[in-house]
Amino acid sequence: MTVKAYGAHAGDQPLVSLDITRRESGAHDVQIDIAFCGVCHSDLHQVRGEWAGTQYPCVPGHEIVGRVAAIGAHVTKHKVGDLVGVGCMVDSCQHCADCEDGLENYCDGMVGTYNGPTADAPGHTLGGYSEQIVVHERFVLSVSHPEEQLAAVAPLLCAGITTWSPLRHWNAGPGKRVGIVGIGGLGHMGIKLARAMGAHVVAFTTSEAKRADALALGAHEVVVSRDPVAMAEQAKSLDLIVNTVAAPHDLDAFLNLLKRDGTMVLVGAPSSPHPSPQVFNLIMKRRAIAGSMIGGIPETQEMLDFCAEHGIVADIEMIRADEINAAYKRMLKGDVKYRFVIDSATLAA
Amino acid sequence: MTVKAYGAHAGDQPLVSLDITRRESGAHDVQIDIAFCGVCHSDLHQVRGEWAGTQYPCVPGHEIVGRVAAIGAHVTKHKVGDLVGVGCMVDSCQHCADCEDGLENYCDGMVGTYNGPTADAPGHTLGGYSEQIVVHERFVLSVSHPEEQLAAVAPLLCAGITTWSPLRHWNAGPGKRVGIVGIGGLGHMGIKLARAMGAHVVAFTTSEAKRADALALGAHEVVVSRDPVAMAEQAKSLDLIVNTVAAPHDLDAFLNLLKRDGTMVLVGAPSSPHPSPQVFNLIMKRRAIAGSMIGGIPETQEMLDFCAEHGIVADIEMIRADEINAAYKRMLKGDVKYRFVIDSATLAA
Repeated sequence: MTVKAYGAHAGDQPLVSLDITRRESGAHDVQIDIAFCGVCHSDLHQVRGEWAGTQYPCVPGHEIVGRVAAIGAHVTKHKVGDLVGVGCMVDSCQHCADCEDGLENYCDGMVGTYNGPTADAPGHTLGGYSEQIVVHERFVLSVSHPEEQLAAVAPLLCAGITTWSPLRHWNAGPGKRVGIVGIGGLGHMGIKLARAMGAHVVAFTTSEAKRADALALGAHEVVVSRDPVAMAEQAKSLDLIVNTVAAPHDLDAFLNLLKRDGTMVLVGAPSSPHPSPQVFNLIMKRRAIAGSMIGGIPETQEMLDFCAEHGIVADIEMIRADEINAAYKRMLKGDVKYRFVIDSATLAA
Repeated sequence: MTVKAYGAHAGDQPLVSLDITRRESGAHDVQIDIAFCGVCHSDLHQVRGEWAGTQYPCVPGHEIVGRVAAIGAHVTKHKVGDLVGVGCMVDSCQHCADCEDGLENYCDGMVGTYNGPTADAPGHTLGGYSEQIVVHERFVLSVSHPEEQLAAVAPLLCAGITTWSPLRHWNAGPGKRVGIVGIGGLGHMGIKLARAMGAHVVAFTTSEAKRADALALGAHEVVVSRDPVAMAEQAKSLDLIVNTVAAPHDLDAFLNLLKRDGTMVLVGAPSSPHPSPQVFNLIMKRRAIAGSMIGGIPETQEMLDFCAEHGIVADIEMIRADEINAAYKRMLKGDVKYRFVIDSATLAA
């Protein structure tokens, strides 16, 4: 089956319209007509070869929503016509301890939605900047939001789950003070989710200009991290920090804001290391620095259901497929509130 | 009350015999005849002014054991003649959340056994390299080991609790694989304690020469960390690592040995930072780097009782007080198995 897609032939080439093939649906496969696909920073890094190992042609996209077009003979989770989503992975070993715990994201055999190993042509997975995708039912999520919100649901599949998973794992909720560092694609979801979970939310940004937006997103307090007085006022006050900033920065400034036994969870991997954090700041209050990577399938479903129930979607800016190269340029400048989403109907244009 | 002690008048001076004063016992105080005092690396750093803020004269020592000589009118925890111990702290605010949780070690008002603020002359606390000490009963531990083991109990008050606390907090026990990095004063206790808790213990050392000792201390496996093949065999296998090495070193080599959700706890603060750890190694498996500092009073008592029940003491080398400067030199070369302990009877010599 040949479908239209958008991708690049090389790291130094712009994304262009491509024809790609999708496998016939197997017994456990779900064939999805993609309606929208969110644009993640990872898409840009990978398609440009900024991370090791990109294979070309590269079709990015792992914030996929659409409607089920066909199902394999043994599929029980989904039926034709259902609204569904696909996130950052399309397969895993399905039998290791991680998979059995519903944390397929940590499986050594996890297959990314794009640039992952597959028997399908061309030998690596092709992502959601395309008209259709075929995915094992285990990795297809049910979407219960109203259809008119579908485009804004797309970013939940990566930006949403990436912040939801650490918030849940480290018990954000009533009585907890949670910091969200960085108000971008991930951070704006972190603020919305932590607030809806019942936590007291403190948003941290380098930019005074984002204060009003952060409050509107749901933050109880906003701290400009360049302001040492405002930072000092938060010292030893937070139970949890979800730090979404991938650019190298001073972690100690945030570690000092954690209470005893507090954890700062990093969800972005910098291209060059952060300045080495002071061990003393960890030891003094039994603090921790942890990492977290997207989330497992059961928790992704839990997050989608929670968001549908609470009316939570991402703040998005819709683009046509042929605007993707311009959108990447704007994304690099932080000029997006807060996620670009491709209207898949424009792929065929 | 004037007693004999050993300490330094300046950071560049050797330790010498001193006369110091101890306060009269207050209503909640316990006056202790010190029998033995362990020699911790912190003693050396502090007395030499290698950490900020040392006040002189400085009398180090926070691994104190002895016998109760007198008690104040309101003391209920201890009675004259009891075997007791005092560790790294002699006071705290006694009413904050940390103190109420029995984690006085994390109280902002914690008073160190030496070089801490006090109303007593000379205005800062003087430690256990002395004949007697007077301490609030809350900070005096009961020792139930046989008296003939008393000298070897002393290091439990710092080296013991510093490894016990993270082992307990991060749930070392049956079915868990626990790594202990560094086989020195702290590490040799970590091996003994983790083994007695029922964990599978993997000891890491840079020195092949320590293999037999580590096994004798209770390690199930010993890995020479300079051996990349042996290290690779441990990849993703450990639930917890207690890293006792304060010298700057590559944390990633050990982070990679943790399973998903594993934690490496640093109990030593390097004088210059470790090379910055790779965030990717944290994110990939939801790993954490944490810090831990000594332990609270209730858990110190729990540790001492556990050790008495299991016949656990430190491996020590007894010295006279006037051998302390030579002992420091040997300690800096790692030439001690595994803790020097001062015989307090020699202070008066």
